Amino acid sequence: MNRPAIDAADLPRHAANLLEDVRARAPRVHCLMNTVVQKLVADALSATGGIPSMTSSPEEVGAFVTKADALVVNLGTLDAQRREAIGLALQAASETGKDWVLDPAHCDYSPTRAAFAQALLARGATVLRANAAEHELLRIPADVVCVQTGAEDRVSHGNAALAVANGHPLMAKVTGTGCLSGALIAAFVAVGGEPFTAAASAMLAVGVAAEAAARRAEGPGSFEPALLDALAALSSEDIIRHARVRNEQG
Amino acid sequence: MNRPAIDAADLPRHAANLLEDVRARAPRVHCLMNTVVQKLVADALSATGGIPSMTSSPEEVGAFVTKADALVVNLGTLDAQRREAIGLALQAASETGKDWVLDPAHCDYSPTRAAFAQALLARGATVLRANAAEHELLRIPADVVCVQTGAEDRVSHGNAALAVANGHPLMAKVTGTGCLSGALIAAFVAVGGEPFTAAASAMLAVGVAAEAAARRAEGPGSFEPALLDALAALSSEDIIRHARVRNEQG
Amino acid sequence: MNRPAIDAADLPRHAANLLEDVRARAPRVHCLMNTVVQKLVADALSATGGIPSMTSSPEEVGAFVTKADALVVNLGTLDAQRREAIGLALQAASETGKDWVLDPAHCDYSPTRAAFAQALLARGATVLRANAAEHELLRIPADVVCVQTGAEDRVSHGNAALAVANGHPLMAKVTGTGCLSGALIAAFVAVGGEPFTAAASAMLAVGVAAEAAARRAEGPGSFEPALLDALAALSSEDIIRHARVRNEQG
Repeated sequence: MNRPAIDAADLPRHAANLLEDVRARAPRVHCLMNTVVQKLVADALSATGGIPSMTSSPEEVGAFVTKADALVVNLGTLDAQRREAIGLALQAASETGKDWVLDPAHCDYSPTRAAFAQALLARGATVLRANAAEHELLRIPADVVCVQTGAEDRVSHGNAALAVANGHPLMAKVTGTGCLSGALIAAFVAVGGEPFTAAASAMLAVGVAAEAAARRAEGPGSFEPALLDALAALSSEDIIRHARVRNEQG
Repeated sequence: MNRPAIDAADLPRHAANLLEDVRARAPRVHCLMNTVVQKLVADALSATGGIPSMTSSPEEVGAFVTKADALVVNLGTLDAQRREAIGLALQAASETGKDWVLDPAHCDYSPTRAAFAQALLARGATVLRANAAEHELLRIPADVVCVQTGAEDRVSHGNAALAVANGHPLMAKVTGTGCLSGALIAAFVAVGGEPFTAAASAMLAVGVAAEAAARRAEGPGSFEPALLDALAALSSEDIIRHARVRNEQG
Repeated sequence: MNRPAIDAADLPRHAANLLEDVRARAPRVHCLMNTVVQKLVADALSATGGIPSMTSSPEEVGAFVTKADALVVNLGTLDAQRREAIGLALQAASETGKDWVLDPAHCDYSPTRAAFAQALLARGATVLRANAAEHELLRIPADVVCVQTGAEDRVSHGNAALAVANGHPLMAKVTGTGCLSGALIAAFVAVGGEPFTAAASAMLAVGVAAEAAARRAEGPGSFEPALLDALAALSSEDIIRHARVRNEQG
């Protein structure tokens, strides 16, 4: 797969268009999501314009994924049942041609989780979203778009790379802001976004929304509802006006 | 069971009285609730005046239901253990004469969930709360009070039906507002409300509270805490002044 | 173990110092936490300065506890897998010398949960946090620091006891405020606090933050984000100025 790079200067317009597409088409994103942040991720998807579903029951997950538009697989709170559900979900995604995003949350804390993340990557993830410590542990196949989140977010694929400087330190004080980014990437890919562009666009949308939320928040508690409000209110103009994106070497 | 209909004009007063009863008697509602919205549902019950409990462990659920005043069974995130727990909970409810509310969340997404919902209905649910798509899939026994939620909520039993027009579109953007309605119906039934009246009263209370919350909210994020504040502050006068209820054919 | 008592007049200064230590050293607290309140507890730890982790998967919990600085074991939503995970977590805590806090949530509702709580106490809990009904059911070993929460919180060990009068009735309307207190006790113990002082300090910090939050809240819904904001903003001066602590007989 040889995906075209896009220029930093073009990303905001692409992101604005994809956000409009998410709102117009309301993609359903099935989330195999750790139990801690299921509610926040569901609400963030709804606020942005998508539709969440969340079961990780092995008996049901195949039917839910088959009817969904994309899938995000988050490895938090990873027990045996969830592992089984992930396998069944990826089988359904493969059979029905759905893109999926891998978020190997905290795989640096547990060797079994890291090994599981590595095995999943070989099953054709469209996008990997992880922090620096998690990225370092994994060998990443050439066809996976990488989103490395941190003070700046870095989106790369082969030689192409973009740095998105939007965002706010309060995000790191609220559990699940990284996880919701993974779900929004899936929503942006689901409406037909070329994966590199879609992933960078989702990170840009979240980052701009986070900055708007931080202007209203009085701390991490009030930041969370403000972030959902900001995702719901986010306009094309907000994205284009506030975007801070740079080209980088891949 | 031949339950009396009540007139739309009388519902607000009944609802106000039942809300006072919930606050005075603090019924404990055991919730077999999907993991996504357990916290919101617990907080909504507390805000309204009830006491939540939430375990879905098969080892414990019987003891919890036996000491509870009513039960709500929500089919979200329905795995094998939860299925087993539901069976044990309904057995305890039957043995101790507790009313229970069925919420077959998203049973239109999964055939196994729909079949399970149908089997549960035969075990004597007092109230079914579901949206139109979920209702259509199910054959409903004659003695079950039906609450069909949507832009308007419709409560029916045999030939009697009421339409409750209160509510707000932001409810659909916050995961769990439907689920919390199911739990509040259980609380209103628990204090001795005749099921048709209790179900309609709970929907009216939630709808009026949602309208109050929407006046303060700046989006779906701030709507959620505002809804909890509004449930806690809801007065008899609010219900009577703002109710929009119509008689309908059953 | 013969731990020194401290005087009520000295607690605020100790609490202020321990809070600074938590912020400076960012202890990681592993939480075996009921599924209802995982998100709130994680956010409260982050707001105060700690780092949460939450898995209750038996395959992973040992690795997470081994790298953590302290552990809190909460018995809500206690199924067989969680029971197994707790056993493995306590083994890892014992092998690596980690302090742990037991929160036997709702053990008065279920005999099997009460028996499990009693068995866990024999495995060397540093601190027990429970309400009066839960305390009454348990025989408490002499070396365990007891925190009995209620309208006032009472911290005792042998003959030493302190009463902390700070706090606010809205805490009882928000599910998880007790659970987050248990996690914050673990964070205060993790930075080297002598357990009696650390437990009393954590309760004082939460109580003062709750009072600040209540001044901004319009009900239980807005109280929750306000509490997180208040924990993040809490200063040494706040604690020292607002503390209401008394010496008591143990």
